[in-house]
Amino acid sequence: MKRESPGSEIRINRLEALTDGVFAIAMTILVLSLEVPSRSQVTSQSELVQNIMSKGYQFLSYFISFFVIGSIWISTIRRTHILNKTDYKHLWLNMLNLFFVTTIPFTTSLLGDYGEYEFAEVLFHLDILILETIALVQWQYLMNNKDLIREDAIDDSNLIYYRKVYIFHVIVPLLGIAVSVFTPVWSNLVYLVIFFRVFFIRR
Amino acid sequence: MKRESPGSEIRINRLEALTDGVFAIAMTILVLSLEVPSRSQVTSQSELVQNIMSKGYQFLSYFISFFVIGSIWISTIRRTHILNKTDYKHLWLNMLNLFFVTTIPFTTSLLGDYGEYEFAEVLFHLDILILETIALVQWQYLMNNKDLIREDAIDDSNLIYYRKVYIFHVIVPLLGIAVSVFTPVWSNLVYLVIFFRVFFIRR
Amino acid sequence: MKRESPGSEIRINRLEALTDGVFAIAMTILVLSLEVPSRSQVTSQSELVQNIMSKGYQFLSYFISFFVIGSIWISTIRRTHILNKTDYKHLWLNMLNLFFVTTIPFTTSLLGDYGEYEFAEVLFHLDILILETIALVQWQYLMNNKDLIREDAIDDSNLIYYRKVYIFHVIVPLLGIAVSVFTPVWSNLVYLVIFFRVFFIRR
Amino acid sequence: MKRESPGSEIRINRLEALTDGVFAIAMTILVLSLEVPSRSQVTSQSELVQNIMSKGYQFLSYFISFFVIGSIWISTIRRTHILNKTDYKHLWLNMLNLFFVTTIPFTTSLLGDYGEYEFAEVLFHLDILILETIALVQWQYLMNNKDLIREDAIDDSNLIYYRKVYIFHVIVPLLGIAVSVFTPVWSNLVYLVIFFRVFFIRR
Repeated sequence: MKRESPGSEIRINRLEALTDGVFAIAMTILVLSLEVPSRSQVTSQSELVQNIMSKGYQFLSYFISFFVIGSIWISTIRRTHILNKTDYKHLWLNMLNLFFVTTIPFTTSLLGDYGEYEFAEVLFHLDILILETIALVQWQYLMNNKDLIREDAIDDSNLIYYRKVYIFHVIVPLLGIAVSVFTPVWSNLVYLVIFFRVFFIRR
Repeated sequence: MKRESPGSEIRINRLEALTDGVFAIAMTILVLSLEVPSRSQVTSQSELVQNIMSKGYQFLSYFISFFVIGSIWISTIRRTHILNKTDYKHLWLNMLNLFFVTTIPFTTSLLGDYGEYEFAEVLFHLDILILETIALVQWQYLMNNKDLIREDAIDDSNLIYYRKVYIFHVIVPLLGIAVSVFTPVWSNLVYLVIFFRVFFIRR
Repeated sequence: MKRESPGSEIRINRLEALTDGVFAIAMTILVLSLEVPSRSQVTSQSELVQNIMSKGYQFLSYFISFFVIGSIWISTIRRTHILNKTDYKHLWLNMLNLFFVTTIPFTTSLLGDYGEYEFAEVLFHLDILILETIALVQWQYLMNNKDLIREDAIDDSNLIYYRKVYIFHVIVPLLGIAVSVFTPVWSNLVYLVIFFRVFFIRR
Repeated sequence: MKRESPGSEIRINRLEALTDGVFAIAMTILVLSLEVPSRSQVTSQSELVQNIMSKGYQFLSYFISFFVIGSIWISTIRRTHILNKTDYKHLWLNMLNLFFVTTIPFTTSLLGDYGEYEFAEVLFHLDILILETIALVQWQYLMNNKDLIREDAIDDSNLIYYRKVYIFHVIVPLLGIAVSVFTPVWSNLVYLVIFFRVFFIRR
């Protein structure tokens, strides 16, 4: 039994549009985790200042999640950019990836509210871990199915280099889980190492 | 009286952009059905764990709806891909389709909260049933109006094959309604058969 | 003093992307006007059925608003399609138009909750009236500034025909206001005449 | 150590799609700052009228923020339009810019609810100040890295002219902060000077 190929019907640009849409929305609704205090809670300017200042940790969580989603988006672009066509397995892996992107506003909000509990931290890191693992699996899948890759993008040294990058991105949330055992509250700062990737991985 | 044709003004790519936008948003705001517990409800880590664990069924509903919307999106792409132009009837059928996509976050949320009640399950399946029926009607409409189809996409065996696929997709929510009479809570698992479509429909 | 022309920097396709995004989001978040009842309100299936059934009017308002936004989107496409370039006046008129699109989820929600009050109905119709008036002004602006129009789209009989269509769309919410004086609750049904436009306006 | 260039993988059009998505969502969810009164608060039409009328200042804040975001979007388009390729620094500056766009629905909502407190006003102006400063830095970065600019867009007089525009946009929120010391409530009206930019900056 031959599975029909969706390659001709599912054009890459539609997949890109859906993907960019989901990422844009997930990044933007992160802000909904910051609640404006109701007028019954706040009766003077000093109370307002106090209320907003107490949201510092929620703001940090939101800030970090924004950039984590941003880095995942960049890695998604890289995987789509080399595509020649898609097949059902690749397509559904992509959907699974998008699904876990949509969960980030929830785990971020939980983290912002309950960052002192290891559970909230670990849940957040697990979310990212799953996302990054799917990304690695997708990359490996493309390496194993070179007919899906554009001819001018099949450069083995490049593919191998980026596999290292994907492995690096899987390690970061694992590191986060390890750190959260010792100091839950600040464990999401580990994602800052993403900006220093070039010091860890060389071509 | 001749209806003016919108074919020249309504470019397919705009319709695609609106469609992808609506799908991306509907898929992403599903997450809003998961509520972060307020600090007054949760005072210890074990209470947090318990609260999150109790959301298991809501999470499952959200997960399944995400993939149901995903499969509907793929079927939408297929119908748009073969388009040469659009006319008002086709356009409004498409809008009707999008309308019912936007209702899914509501029926999903209801399902997640009240999954033990047959009513919530049936409402969800009805929502999908309407969506899939509109999709089938749209496909049949295209088959009856071949001037709307791109010349290289008019392949009758292909059109007939996919009509079977559309009929299959109408049957799944009907199956869901039948199952929900016996066991409401798990009736939305029927949508998993979508992933095994190839075993049911051959070219 | 010559105003610099933004024509070369503001590409039409970006304006289209922003426009389609705003419309897609406004259409999709209409669903947030339907609230899932909290578990403390509903303790049996019959209560759930009753609760959902009582949302009938909210659902109708949401349904009608969806299609009103849809029809406004189609009219937006028509105006953008003929564009050769944009200038600041045209661009800000477009932004003003988008602003009032974003208000529709609010006026719709108000209508769904307070449809028995003439005030809620009139506010909704006023919202649409402003939108349709801006659309008409934009069309007239294009007719007066033919350098903004693509050469192959400058067909005066066509431009005049669609001006009639735009005037027709301004009349519908005025009709809605008139009807709401007599029977507030059902005044938003007047928008159904949009589907029968061809019987009123001939080329 | 040479940083790998993302120029070939991160296509500009994907960056545009994400950007337009984030702006469209931020502009549209501003409306969520207007709350529909619950039925327990409102029992007669006159109470509804009163409730809605009391939202006048919230509506004004929402209206002004919409156009401020709109003007930032236009300035974003201008920066992207001249791009030949992107590099990681430029890309992350862009992400930082998008991050602060997503915060505007929060600061707007705060402003709408607590406009009489200088703190809420200053926070809003600070938000815009940061955004406009990042925009200026990005523009200067492009001027310093002309390889990122399309050849036909490298026109020094044009680049210098728009730097003045970017500086102008940094001054406006500073003005807002100054005004808010004297009269907090109306300080966001300073953004109206954006529409009169041409009177301040000449080529």
